[in-house]
Amino acid sequence: MKRIAVLTSGGDAPAMNAAVRSVARSAIFRDIEVVGVRRGYEGLLEGDLIPLTKSSVGGIIHRGGTILRTARSERFRRPEGINEALQQLKRFDIDGLVVVGGDGSFRGAWELVQRGFAVVGVPATIDNDIAGTDMTIGFDTALNTVLEAVKKIRDTASSHDRLFIIEVMGREAGFLALEVAVASGAEYVLVPERPVDLPRLCDKLHYARKRGKTHSLIVLAEGVMAAHELAGQLLDTGGYDSRITVLGHIQRGGSPSAFDAVLASRMGAAALTGLVEGQTGVMAAYRRGGMELVPLSLAWEQKKELNTELLDLVEKLSI
Amino acid sequence: MKRIAVLTSGGDAPAMNAAVRSVARSAIFRDIEVVGVRRGYEGLLEGDLIPLTKSSVGGIIHRGGTILRTARSERFRRPEGINEALQQLKRFDIDGLVVVGGDGSFRGAWELVQRGFAVVGVPATIDNDIAGTDMTIGFDTALNTVLEAVKKIRDTASSHDRLFIIEVMGREAGFLALEVAVASGAEYVLVPERPVDLPRLCDKLHYARKRGKTHSLIVLAEGVMAAHELAGQLLDTGGYDSRITVLGHIQRGGSPSAFDAVLASRMGAAALTGLVEGQTGVMAAYRRGGMELVPLSLAWEQKKELNTELLDLVEKLSI
Amino acid sequence: MKRIAVLTSGGDAPAMNAAVRSVARSAIFRDIEVVGVRRGYEGLLEGDLIPLTKSSVGGIIHRGGTILRTARSERFRRPEGINEALQQLKRFDIDGLVVVGGDGSFRGAWELVQRGFAVVGVPATIDNDIAGTDMTIGFDTALNTVLEAVKKIRDTASSHDRLFIIEVMGREAGFLALEVAVASGAEYVLVPERPVDLPRLCDKLHYARKRGKTHSLIVLAEGVMAAHELAGQLLDTGGYDSRITVLGHIQRGGSPSAFDAVLASRMGAAALTGLVEGQTGVMAAYRRGGMELVPLSLAWEQKKELNTELLDLVEKLSI
Amino acid sequence: MKRIAVLTSGGDAPAMNAAVRSVARSAIFRDIEVVGVRRGYEGLLEGDLIPLTKSSVGGIIHRGGTILRTARSERFRRPEGINEALQQLKRFDIDGLVVVGGDGSFRGAWELVQRGFAVVGVPATIDNDIAGTDMTIGFDTALNTVLEAVKKIRDTASSHDRLFIIEVMGREAGFLALEVAVASGAEYVLVPERPVDLPRLCDKLHYARKRGKTHSLIVLAEGVMAAHELAGQLLDTGGYDSRITVLGHIQRGGSPSAFDAVLASRMGAAALTGLVEGQTGVMAAYRRGGMELVPLSLAWEQKKELNTELLDLVEKLSI
Repeated sequence: MKRIAVLTSGGDAPAMNAAVRSVARSAIFRDIEVVGVRRGYEGLLEGDLIPLTKSSVGGIIHRGGTILRTARSERFRRPEGINEALQQLKRFDIDGLVVVGGDGSFRGAWELVQRGFAVVGVPATIDNDIAGTDMTIGFDTALNTVLEAVKKIRDTASSHDRLFIIEVMGREAGFLALEVAVASGAEYVLVPERPVDLPRLCDKLHYARKRGKTHSLIVLAEGVMAAHELAGQLLDTGGYDSRITVLGHIQRGGSPSAFDAVLASRMGAAALTGLVEGQTGVMAAYRRGGMELVPLSLAWEQKKELNTELLDLVEKLSI
Repeated sequence: MKRIAVLTSGGDAPAMNAAVRSVARSAIFRDIEVVGVRRGYEGLLEGDLIPLTKSSVGGIIHRGGTILRTARSERFRRPEGINEALQQLKRFDIDGLVVVGGDGSFRGAWELVQRGFAVVGVPATIDNDIAGTDMTIGFDTALNTVLEAVKKIRDTASSHDRLFIIEVMGREAGFLALEVAVASGAEYVLVPERPVDLPRLCDKLHYARKRGKTHSLIVLAEGVMAAHELAGQLLDTGGYDSRITVLGHIQRGGSPSAFDAVLASRMGAAALTGLVEGQTGVMAAYRRGGMELVPLSLAWEQKKELNTELLDLVEKLSI
Repeated sequence: MKRIAVLTSGGDAPAMNAAVRSVARSAIFRDIEVVGVRRGYEGLLEGDLIPLTKSSVGGIIHRGGTILRTARSERFRRPEGINEALQQLKRFDIDGLVVVGGDGSFRGAWELVQRGFAVVGVPATIDNDIAGTDMTIGFDTALNTVLEAVKKIRDTASSHDRLFIIEVMGREAGFLALEVAVASGAEYVLVPERPVDLPRLCDKLHYARKRGKTHSLIVLAEGVMAAHELAGQLLDTGGYDSRITVLGHIQRGGSPSAFDAVLASRMGAAALTGLVEGQTGVMAAYRRGGMELVPLSLAWEQKKELNTELLDLVEKLSI
Repeated sequence: MKRIAVLTSGGDAPAMNAAVRSVARSAIFRDIEVVGVRRGYEGLLEGDLIPLTKSSVGGIIHRGGTILRTARSERFRRPEGINEALQQLKRFDIDGLVVVGGDGSFRGAWELVQRGFAVVGVPATIDNDIAGTDMTIGFDTALNTVLEAVKKIRDTASSHDRLFIIEVMGREAGFLALEVAVASGAEYVLVPERPVDLPRLCDKLHYARKRGKTHSLIVLAEGVMAAHELAGQLLDTGGYDSRITVLGHIQRGGSPSAFDAVLASRMGAAALTGLVEGQTGVMAAYRRGGMELVPLSLAWEQKKELNTELLDLVEKLSI
């Protein structure tokens, strides 16, 4: 390999920059040139590439978002688009590509792999819903961001004796909602992986009130329903008045936590090593504390399971 | 004075606990007994009082919310309610009251003052919209909370080349929105004190895009309109697609900033001194860096003006 | 089991309170009574016990330090002391004990186990140097605290073109130093597990300067040598002027990170379950992402190895 | 004015970058060119200047340290150096200079003013010890940084029942120590402006212990004596065992607080306006909540007084 490229794609996640830095420095360490593709696959199609040097990736490890930016690309979803992308890669003499992103980004990468181009993925999403890796880049930071927000809301909830519903990200996965519920000592959690049992939730609220608990927090993953919808149902079913907070985009931003900065550094380096050693169609994965390379296809072929131990914990510890 | 009471009322604000601690310790320092009234005027009517001691207010200076809790009281708005409150104060041998809260709480306090009971206020609201004092307790903390959130959103905005609308608290006042716009380098700010000039906003967005600015942040005080409404108008008027974030209740919570912890400590002590020296119907005020006691009535008789220097700054510095 | 006790011992670590809460609530969930022993083994000898209830452990999950406090106990190191402790446990009708602490605390626990008393440990130390568990409670929080500090120091280092030595905790283990070096993008790291190679360090500094790097950060684990000592050697050997910062006790405090709050909740629950199921002489362990119970003796019989992959990363990524 | 320059000098302080951005954008807003001088007066002598544009100062408002860097300059202290500096300013067609720094930097600026060059200062130091302005840039951020550190240390202090001495910056001024003592609820504070009364301090410690207070925090400004020295005296005089923490350089770094970001923005704009309007030998000052221009010479001719109200508060509130 003489020259590789790195791009970030899909929704941005904290520590994407740390991953880009790690890929770039690991490459330079081996005397491989690196270019950054701006705005994901769309930028690749447009040939929007910039050289990455030792110093141009200096100081980015702590920055939120992605300096390479990211974008959706309709064109890249069509076969012509993919072929054009391959031509661009060829035109710029690029021998391998590291894609930092989520499952949608990996499906795109797979198209390139299928056509013979070497691609290694680095899983990055605050949802942590990529099978094959125990953790994705950005999840730990988002978890801490949400925890801080929930702690602030608890101040108000307990001062006003109120019931609060906090809607967090997670369209199809409840990892963020579940871990933050445990970490914050929330009373209830609703995740897409489990059916909503409103009568039971109302029973618990009733029981809590009866024994003097004057405030409660419900953590709700957006994939279950909207917060205002749940508030309506709680009012209709049990007469419970609640306040809602939709955390929104603050969950994606911020300087990476220590865990994420380390994870992104390890994954970026592992991805580069994989490329150099001839791997393709794989992603860097954190499994049982160590780095491995696993098939990209796990991202869309397998469904990552919630840890039921944590579901039980919320139940048990919020008595 | 042998025994005084302190209560928190209205919306909770960071550093209310620091104020309660300061009132209590300042009283105890002068050998005056202190009781805390729980849940504001409602608790007063119910006689829900607890003794405050040196140690019971230890360790609360950094806690968000209010350990005394707060509540709305319909009863206290009626003349009978006020008379009952006076009877409770008498029943518990209370010679003076410190009310920590906003303008609604001060109007309530004024009713007691009118009937001859000694009350001193401590202005606390994250809106900073109380005339007579340059700063209210909680404003600086909320400002920092919002700034942190805006910084996170900027990460995403710049990664995705997006226009973001961030809705912050402020029904009738734009202090929070304005200061956070300056502090975060936001491109635009909309406050209730100024008419919305949508064509001009669209012009500025147009000009910014033209010279290559790919992302922008608009800080919107909730009193102007809802964020989704503004998003709709931007789309209709100028074809601008935007994302919205409504910060909500996280703005009220959190451990106080250093400024707020100091301000609350100073105000609590000043209020107690005022009471002891026979003042009533006044509030502790931060004016030009110093502590003063000013009439409570300023809170509803005067309107605090926005600093136009800051409005100009947003314009000038976001070029 | 009808009644169990929990104590915290040794140096305090973030999330100890979250562990205590989890032990207590898990017990109450199973209708087992819980008492908290104050000031570790010393408090046990003195019979300084307090009942823990659902609500008395409410709101402590986010608090730094330990509400049960901790202390050294000379008495407990002697056989008589251990027998007295057993008598106290008997006197208070305690059937099992959870010890939250580090290896010293576990050795103490082992003495009780040897004499037939049921004890389960929860490993808590910011050093993460307990074999048998991948992570100890408090490590992740301390890592983030140190990372924040290093980021602040880098601001000054780069503004003044300076070389900084940052001394972090770790008498016998370099886990904290190593992970923070990776997470912060520090240029060098010195850990007790590796010999100091001063000429090589000077070579790297020399080379960095030559290619224009005007500032550098060295992370030093306290167990290697004191920061001022290293500064002296760098000056003598290579003529390098440096500034030093000794982070000290701030590393132990603070509200737990999300990871630590979850880990402590899981470990506390696992320890209680272990006790109930008749286990003794074991500790809750985080292994490969899951909860296990492993022999307490691993804490002093095995040495936990540094991850050499991370040592290589510091080298590779700080080019 | 057609072209102005801005430099940062002396010790770095948070929000220096926000000030540089504000100076630059305010100038560009008026169609004035701006250059940044790197490494303070030393860089000026070397002609190390870079153009500042709308976009080159974009995104720096939140960054700690100073992107222009700072350095000491021995040469600039001599008359020849000052003349050379004037020649450089002439050579680069610079009509006016904004100096962001502390009193030492302002004395240097004064030499240029004396020789007829237009200079306006922006007071920036975490010590807040510049007379003529109620607040300097960086103070509020440092205060919050120190407060966070003290809160962490209190966790450990209360867990271990210990007496802690926390040494903070402040060679000749106790502003930082005093405000943090109030904000953190510290039990004692020692500042350079007041003589140390060790017997009285020991009395207070004695009394505190007697009434059950098991831990205490002493905030010590470095200008009084070193922390280990005070620890020694406390041991010798009263037999008090203490732990020490020297906060060091972390106090200078970090992203600016909201207050500092606003203050720096206002001061930078005011300084530029002053220059344009023909002012020289003045600095932007925050007085009673508003912006003014005051003589630079106040910085070294007057001594800013500590607020004795705050000294009393520490006494009164730490009972």
